[in-house]
Amino acid sequence: MRFATAAPVATDSFAPLSVPVDAGLNAVRGDIAAVLSMRHGGPRPVRLRYECVGRADAPVVVVAGGISAHRHVAANAEFPEKGWAEGLVATGRALDPASLRILAFDFIGADGALDLPIDTADQADALALLLDHLGIARLQCFVGYSYGALVGQQFAIRHRERVQKLIAVSGAHRPHPYAAAWRALQRRAVALGQLQCAESHGLSLARQFAMLSYRTPEEFGERFDAAPEVVNGRVRVAAEDYLDAAGAQYVARTPVDAYLRLSESIDLHRIDPAAIQVPTVVVAVEGDRLVPLADCVGLVEGLGPRGSLRVLRSHYGHDAFLKETDRIDAILATAFRSPGESA
Amino acid sequence: MRFATAAPVATDSFAPLSVPVDAGLNAVRGDIAAVLSMRHGGPRPVRLRYECVGRADAPVVVVAGGISAHRHVAANAEFPEKGWAEGLVATGRALDPASLRILAFDFIGADGALDLPIDTADQADALALLLDHLGIARLQCFVGYSYGALVGQQFAIRHRERVQKLIAVSGAHRPHPYAAAWRALQRRAVALGQLQCAESHGLSLARQFAMLSYRTPEEFGERFDAAPEVVNGRVRVAAEDYLDAAGAQYVARTPVDAYLRLSESIDLHRIDPAAIQVPTVVVAVEGDRLVPLADCVGLVEGLGPRGSLRVLRSHYGHDAFLKETDRIDAILATAFRSPGESA
Repeated sequence: MRFATAAPVATDSFAPLSVPVDAGLNAVRGDIAAVLSMRHGGPRPVRLRYECVGRADAPVVVVAGGISAHRHVAANAEFPEKGWAEGLVATGRALDPASLRILAFDFIGADGALDLPIDTADQADALALLLDHLGIARLQCFVGYSYGALVGQQFAIRHRERVQKLIAVSGAHRPHPYAAAWRALQRRAVALGQLQCAESHGLSLARQFAMLSYRTPEEFGERFDAAPEVVNGRVRVAAEDYLDAAGAQYVARTPVDAYLRLSESIDLHRIDPAAIQVPTVVVAVEGDRLVPLADCVGLVEGLGPRGSLRVLRSHYGHDAFLKETDRIDAILATAFRSPGESA
Repeated sequence: MRFATAAPVATDSFAPLSVPVDAGLNAVRGDIAAVLSMRHGGPRPVRLRYECVGRADAPVVVVAGGISAHRHVAANAEFPEKGWAEGLVATGRALDPASLRILAFDFIGADGALDLPIDTADQADALALLLDHLGIARLQCFVGYSYGALVGQQFAIRHRERVQKLIAVSGAHRPHPYAAAWRALQRRAVALGQLQCAESHGLSLARQFAMLSYRTPEEFGERFDAAPEVVNGRVRVAAEDYLDAAGAQYVARTPVDAYLRLSESIDLHRIDPAAIQVPTVVVAVEGDRLVPLADCVGLVEGLGPRGSLRVLRSHYGHDAFLKETDRIDAILATAFRSPGESA
């Protein structure tokens, strides 16, 4: 292991065993102070924040999302606010807290406290540290989407004994050079804002450019068909209200350093698919402008007999995981049923 | 006609008839002061700058390019500097100054002197004014690429009697909403730069984002495959040197208002294809991220019996016209041979 563990801070509390078993949606949160040995910065203090839903004795499934996702996947009885993937974790779904223990966490760096390059390997090691703290020896499955898929790949490589199956949605073994360029320019928009003492303005613009990469021309063609207007002597096109709102919403909840460092982290990701030794289901979206289908095929080919591919066609592109909940749930249900490695 | 003509300023001079006929590459430049009645601003003083190559008595073909193109299409004996579409206008090409008179012009607003919304109709009327000045009654053909294709559509609609054939490359009857959103965000990058005296920085970033829309993931995948580097604590991806150079080159030759107003002008463009009454060849590029093939098909369908479609597959996407000169020349040669309207 490349990380050092500090004494955990017991700010979390587990659900007592006396909680009724049918309270499947019982959820707990906690956070741990730890020291993590980071690839680009050596040992650093980090906080590991998590949310866990389901019975303490059920098989554990980790769910990890994109760089703006967090530990709260979906609303539950304890934490009723909306999560980042509503409908994915619920009674009757493949990710059902009545039969599984669903664990999600905030990525390190998401709190804006780490201003250095963050590797996906660091995230994987942070998760291993979290599992140590929670007394979880092994995951039944790691379900990762976008950045979460990259972290899942690293976890499967670096902590091979701790995960039985990987489901990697919309994330390949390396970023596509075009997508990397797109992200680099978004980071430049933030830098331009910082130069102007308009940091949140720059972050908003970066997010708006990112939205174009998350969605598709097909969706925009349907939603923003109206003619442009001339407002105060400037041309304003139909999508601008939507983009304004997306930028403002993001800025309100995202520290600038969190955005910069997690965006970079995607571009630093490069793994050898052959190094993943656990059964892996790769889910690709045709029409994804950030993670082209061909790159997911490359990942599956590198996985050899351990890999299988599911392809979804969606006009939501990279955001399909968040928007096509029913179809993703069906894919997860099938993937959970397919033979994994024996525990 | 919607424009008013001021007294032309005779800064141009035509090639005298005593110039040897085989000096097919003989070129002249000029500019005219005029008053143009603009759709969003009423009468405005404008300067019309042009370059003309070939014999004065040859049939005239206008060539118009994208918003960063200008009156100098290709190097010639008089003006040996590189043009914006080298190889398209040359001896032995479809656009051969030995047999045609090739006219190109600077778009109004390209000098940065117009800070108001500029319509593609304004550009078409400015060209008509220029033709009046040059004593050209009618064009044999208008070859427009990108923004030039939009101007050509307007010219064919508003000055129907003055053009025999239109070749519209990589430009549809209206912008795609996704491409419009992409351009709107580029204009926001300029606005962010303008906040505090970093105007050229903002313009550079806008151009870099534009480059992603002009090219394709396929090209980037081949050219920028190298792993990222960590430079001064920041991740730098392989395409950033290229993007830096593209931004700097653009800023050196482009007034900010020229960029903003011509970018807007694309988004203001909406015409009814049925209003185009001259034979029109639409050339579309499969893989163009700005002007999807489907939109060019929509244009051709609207043209009815007057329209025909040529499709090119190129990993240069929207920039194919500039990069695939041999293939574009072959398409132009065929289009010139196909029956136009009798003169």
